[in-house]
Amino acid sequence: MSTAAPHSPGQDRLWSVDEHLEDVLTAIRPLEPIELHLLDAQGCVLVEDVTVPVSLPPFDNSSMDGYAVRVADVAGASEEFPAALEVVGDVAAGQPGLLQVGPGQAARIMTGAPLPPGAEAVVPVEWTDGGLGEGPVDGMRARSLAPEGATGHVRVHRPAEARAHVRAQGSDVRAGDRALEAGTVLGPPQIALLAAIGRGTVRVRPRPRVVVLSTGSELVQPGEQLADGQIYDSNSFALTAAARDAGAIAYRVGAVVDDADTLRSTVDDQLVRADLMVTTGGVSVGAYDVVKEALAHVGDEDEPGSGVEFRKLAMQPGKPQGFGTLGPDHIPLLALPGNPVSSYVSFELFVRPAIRTLMGLTDVHRPTTRATLTADRPLTSPRGRRQFLRGSYADGAVRPVGGAGSHLVAALAHADALIVVPEDVESVEPGAEVEVVLLG
Amino acid sequence: MSTAAPHSPGQDRLWSVDEHLEDVLTAIRPLEPIELHLLDAQGCVLVEDVTVPVSLPPFDNSSMDGYAVRVADVAGASEEFPAALEVVGDVAAGQPGLLQVGPGQAARIMTGAPLPPGAEAVVPVEWTDGGLGEGPVDGMRARSLAPEGATGHVRVHRPAEARAHVRAQGSDVRAGDRALEAGTVLGPPQIALLAAIGRGTVRVRPRPRVVVLSTGSELVQPGEQLADGQIYDSNSFALTAAARDAGAIAYRVGAVVDDADTLRSTVDDQLVRADLMVTTGGVSVGAYDVVKEALAHVGDEDEPGSGVEFRKLAMQPGKPQGFGTLGPDHIPLLALPGNPVSSYVSFELFVRPAIRTLMGLTDVHRPTTRATLTADRPLTSPRGRRQFLRGSYADGAVRPVGGAGSHLVAALAHADALIVVPEDVESVEPGAEVEVVLLG
Repeated sequence: MSTAAPHSPGQDRLWSVDEHLEDVLTAIRPLEPIELHLLDAQGCVLVEDVTVPVSLPPFDNSSMDGYAVRVADVAGASEEFPAALEVVGDVAAGQPGLLQVGPGQAARIMTGAPLPPGAEAVVPVEWTDGGLGEGPVDGMRARSLAPEGATGHVRVHRPAEARAHVRAQGSDVRAGDRALEAGTVLGPPQIALLAAIGRGTVRVRPRPRVVVLSTGSELVQPGEQLADGQIYDSNSFALTAAARDAGAIAYRVGAVVDDADTLRSTVDDQLVRADLMVTTGGVSVGAYDVVKEALAHVGDEDEPGSGVEFRKLAMQPGKPQGFGTLGPDHIPLLALPGNPVSSYVSFELFVRPAIRTLMGLTDVHRPTTRATLTADRPLTSPRGRRQFLRGSYADGAVRPVGGAGSHLVAALAHADALIVVPEDVESVEPGAEVEVVLLG
Repeated sequence: MSTAAPHSPGQDRLWSVDEHLEDVLTAIRPLEPIELHLLDAQGCVLVEDVTVPVSLPPFDNSSMDGYAVRVADVAGASEEFPAALEVVGDVAAGQPGLLQVGPGQAARIMTGAPLPPGAEAVVPVEWTDGGLGEGPVDGMRARSLAPEGATGHVRVHRPAEARAHVRAQGSDVRAGDRALEAGTVLGPPQIALLAAIGRGTVRVRPRPRVVVLSTGSELVQPGEQLADGQIYDSNSFALTAAARDAGAIAYRVGAVVDDADTLRSTVDDQLVRADLMVTTGGVSVGAYDVVKEALAHVGDEDEPGSGVEFRKLAMQPGKPQGFGTLGPDHIPLLALPGNPVSSYVSFELFVRPAIRTLMGLTDVHRPTTRATLTADRPLTSPRGRRQFLRGSYADGAVRPVGGAGSHLVAALAHADALIVVPEDVESVEPGAEVEVVLLG
């Protein structure tokens, strides 16, 4: 019988941040697409090329409130010598018109209404007497005040070129055009276009459902009373919020006590609603590291690729990490360390890209930039570890916030960037250039 | 009896974009704060200064899995000459400890567990034989494999300074410290801190509820069949999505026909769930401009400040606009023009800042930048109007996308910026510097 702590192959060496990230992203596949109503698809990635089924606008229509006229009838018109036209009626948007505009005639027309047959241009109402015979008007009378519609004659004070104030059928997009390409992220303007061409639903990758649970018998729900040796659970709140920020539908399970059976059954129970599971705590070398204990050996021999592997990464904070898949559907699980800063940094580095990969996004990482270090003294970092320090970034400069301790959650709340100190650097002088991850 | 179209005072002149925006933002007050659960407060603005009630950590605790020892007992220890200590038991996180570490003794301790009385430092388990008497170990055996806990003796291979691997009580934040200031926007790290100090709820300004309705008898729901003269309703979808993007809880009512009574009763009906109402269409000079007809005269003489004013703005697109308040609670309403591009640009310029003002944010506007115009020919713009053209921005350069027409929704879907052409500029040459609003 072995007397050492349980071993998994990954425990025998330090893994780099990049190796671990690559393993995670290689194992995670974008979710299967589903057909969603437009507003449910907001923020999602389109998986189909969308073709325009009907030209926009679908018909020639007026871009102004005015009169639809024949060009010859208003040639040379002026305020002094207006063209007087017989008004044959109203053409309103959405009312299928039966009107025809013949020589010497005009139809009163509203913005968006179809140009009636015979008409060649629209003159804005402000270029006419509005049918009142008393000089230029600045608008039409509301229908409720004049329900009979337009009759009589209108005097037009200016000529119009052919097609003036007419939006041509197909001038926006034509039937058969590519409206949007597969891979497009659907924001408000893309939703506008899809609605405009009549798409009520679209095929997209759904938002991933992320289940977040923290572990630790010392954890108490915020708002309750602390007993000796207890602390408040903050990780499950922070990571649920962060998962939502990344685009997921996040479920916070809360804190599970350090008991392997309880954890295993909680995880089993939650799998049904998870596209990704995230745990915090219990992944290190302690005797009560329950996540490791509960999940290190759940791999089913009949299910290749299943199981969770625990590793040590060459990073600070966030050295102990677990990753694998669970259950018959191979739901990915990321087991993060339990210190608040470690878990948050690990989320940013590994979970956020995983969520965005599930969404089908190609750009899964936070933006990075180079910045000048502003600090009173050099930053120090252990050799062989990639260190992520909390920082505050502005205008090309970054300033450390708080210390390196992985329990310093107050500093985290005042940071908006991570300062990256590479593995081979042990000290960074003030004024030096550093890589910065912008947390947005 | 007046024969002209109905007048309101604002119709008599052109208003500048800035004047209109100032009027809107002056009339809109941040919403009254409410107490919300942490995760419901995500993205909201804190209205209280939050003070730390209990220091973090609340007690001295171990930052490693290892052994809690007295410094003198491990002085000079090495692998060759280890310090052999009597193990008095386990100290796990969340288990109130009754252990005391006396001279020559050690307690096995887990990360986060309270430092037991008598102990002065923690040595990581990797610096010991783990009690197995066979050289350095790389971790502890899981409790399930060794449920009796730690007993016997442990050999320690390295000395430890006082307080080594101990996180001091209050080293993160101290009771009485200011944790977060009023005005802070609550993202994941701020939620982490609030949870960590035990706050289950916080006082914030809630997300505004925004009701979006479009008007037009020509509008058909996407997915249905178009008849002659009809088009699809896109505005209510686009603006609902945009309101959500701005931080609101948005309700899409959909399209209302051009009938003043129907519109008035729909608006009345929806007021109960609105902190802000947004309509599109029906605000121009046509006879069927139902929003104007229905809402221009709803101001109650007994309710100073109530009522909606319709104006012409010196901008393109987006000339006709309405703004005012409705009902006994003076719910603000923005009446936007109906062309898809006009309504979207108007949303960006006026509604988004209004939503963010309701949220209590101080930074309510989209970021702007200067960019070099990349174009095949000069941009033209009508004198006296501030023009907003759709553009694509990258690396300090902006390129127009599509034309100036306010119906060009396809181009909008491929833009990520608005190019601003000031009122006094009629032409912008390629290579010139322009102001750009970044929509991303």
